[in-house]
Amino acid sequence: MKKIGTNTFKLDDLISIVSTASIVGPKESDGPLKEYFDKCVEDEFWGEKSWEKAESKFIKEASISALNKSSLAATDIDCIFSGDLLNQCISSTFGMRDSNIPFYGIFGACSTFCEALSLGSVFIDAGANNVLCATSSHFCSAEKQFRFPLELGNQRTPNSQWTVTGAGSVVLSRNGKGPFITHFTPGVITDMGIKDANNMGAAMAPAALKTLITHLSDTGRSPDYYDMILTGDLGYVGKDILIKLAAEQGYDISNVYNDCGVLMFDQAKQDTHAGGSGCACSATVFSGYIYKLLVEKNISKVLLIATGALMNATSSQQGESIPGIAHAVAIEL
Amino acid sequence: MKKIGTNTFKLDDLISIVSTASIVGPKESDGPLKEYFDKCVEDEFWGEKSWEKAESKFIKEASISALNKSSLAATDIDCIFSGDLLNQCISSTFGMRDSNIPFYGIFGACSTFCEALSLGSVFIDAGANNVLCATSSHFCSAEKQFRFPLELGNQRTPNSQWTVTGAGSVVLSRNGKGPFITHFTPGVITDMGIKDANNMGAAMAPAALKTLITHLSDTGRSPDYYDMILTGDLGYVGKDILIKLAAEQGYDISNVYNDCGVLMFDQAKQDTHAGGSGCACSATVFSGYIYKLLVEKNISKVLLIATGALMNATSSQQGESIPGIAHAVAIEL
Repeated sequence: MKKIGTNTFKLDDLISIVSTASIVGPKESDGPLKEYFDKCVEDEFWGEKSWEKAESKFIKEASISALNKSSLAATDIDCIFSGDLLNQCISSTFGMRDSNIPFYGIFGACSTFCEALSLGSVFIDAGANNVLCATSSHFCSAEKQFRFPLELGNQRTPNSQWTVTGAGSVVLSRNGKGPFITHFTPGVITDMGIKDANNMGAAMAPAALKTLITHLSDTGRSPDYYDMILTGDLGYVGKDILIKLAAEQGYDISNVYNDCGVLMFDQAKQDTHAGGSGCACSATVFSGYIYKLLVEKNISKVLLIATGALMNATSSQQGESIPGIAHAVAIEL
Repeated sequence: MKKIGTNTFKLDDLISIVSTASIVGPKESDGPLKEYFDKCVEDEFWGEKSWEKAESKFIKEASISALNKSSLAATDIDCIFSGDLLNQCISSTFGMRDSNIPFYGIFGACSTFCEALSLGSVFIDAGANNVLCATSSHFCSAEKQFRFPLELGNQRTPNSQWTVTGAGSVVLSRNGKGPFITHFTPGVITDMGIKDANNMGAAMAPAALKTLITHLSDTGRSPDYYDMILTGDLGYVGKDILIKLAAEQGYDISNVYNDCGVLMFDQAKQDTHAGGSGCACSATVFSGYIYKLLVEKNISKVLLIATGALMNATSSQQGESIPGIAHAVAIEL
């Protein structure tokens, strides 16, 4: 790979996304993208005894499905890049426990999916053959861990987002017919002082802006170069902020830009407030919906910018603001 | 890089460790390695209002120190690989918040330091120039999060280990005179059913064995090829187990093998029970002690195998066993 501009890397090898798989929970199965997902699970527990164990099952089954679709054997996979929102990333580690494949745990909060695609591409660019990337999140395990016990029935604030229940997995390979990952722009931690842990869209939008502007500037591309620029989970609040911030920087992204958290749920019929979020948001929307648009040649150039809020419950309790990050990956036919 | 054997990668480029820095807390400053650390802090809070904020300061200051020693500017660093034990890795994210350097968060529990060295090497092998790797842990923040409030004064079990307070940071570069990272063997998640969260050494030893045997088998090297084989934090219990398990597999490692958690504290004078642990254990012992042995040519070949327990408090409460992982990195003059 070669560094171009300040922070973007152009991959030397053609890194092909040879297969994807997406599995979602009941609320996502009622949303506008339901027909695109590989599997819709009707019960948040999916037959397990806890939400955490269910989340591990989501990421495990999505990864097995992606691997099966790739027609590669587990022994062909050089390593896994995987992460999630649970403390110490236990969804990924327990989900991949039986894989017998070298495992690298990663954590970028909800930006983890694009972090996985980036590091997976680098691994292949350096000489590996095949890499599996997977992320998950679960509404119930996330609410329990980050906010309140669901049993309390707390009212949610208008700016809050709904953590997507599900998992997305992709197999990357140096051998394949595309779509290809061509560039990636790793994110810089950006903290504009937002302290409201129920307004993640506002906390993450400045990080998305920084990565977007860096990517466009480094590559010399205009927003219109892409058929679609997609952020991971800024939701309705963050999406509006990003459009305005980009316009202030001279970039009109309104024609090509959308957010996976906005696409995931039906705002009129499904009461999610500010839209979807979570590591599974960009992972399932990409693996389920966007990948199919690419393969069917409805679109040919996508910039996926997954966004993450790098805080925890303790940091908020200690009065800290919320650092954001956004990792961008360019995917082209 | 080229894959050799089943799971080992030989790096094409010479990845030089151009600088290291280590900062430790008060207990570590009383241990046998005190003269090797760059900075010994006398107060667990280090002037901050919480242990979490102090841990962020450890990783931030260690990284600034390593960067300064490298004579590189922050703008020369292509990206940071960093992680820690706190929920959602907040020590790393808050510690690196002001760096303005592209940031990849990683999580391998106490194996994170070798995961960082591996992925940093891959990043340079693929085409980047310079990478910063850093990990931290803190006894007080770890006890509070994983076990009991320190104020309770709970008795610790004989097999329990003492989380190292500190941070280690290294700068990797494609330009440098060594020591060089020449090979790495990523770990496979290994779970032998250990459920005692106060016996991490036993939980992680089988993972260390698997990575060690894989590395030796893939490279065709015997244990004696290395001047030193070092695990990250198996402690006294895990160290004994690994020696026995390796002997059962036909490898006598007793002459060249030691553990960073054993080296860190004085067993007779410092009451740590089974030795040191934590992301900072291998990071500070390597950055402080081992790196200097290499630079001064007292040793020339080291295999560092950082070990991690991939669980959290919830998984233990839900009756899960403790999956282990171990990532190996070969460092040679």
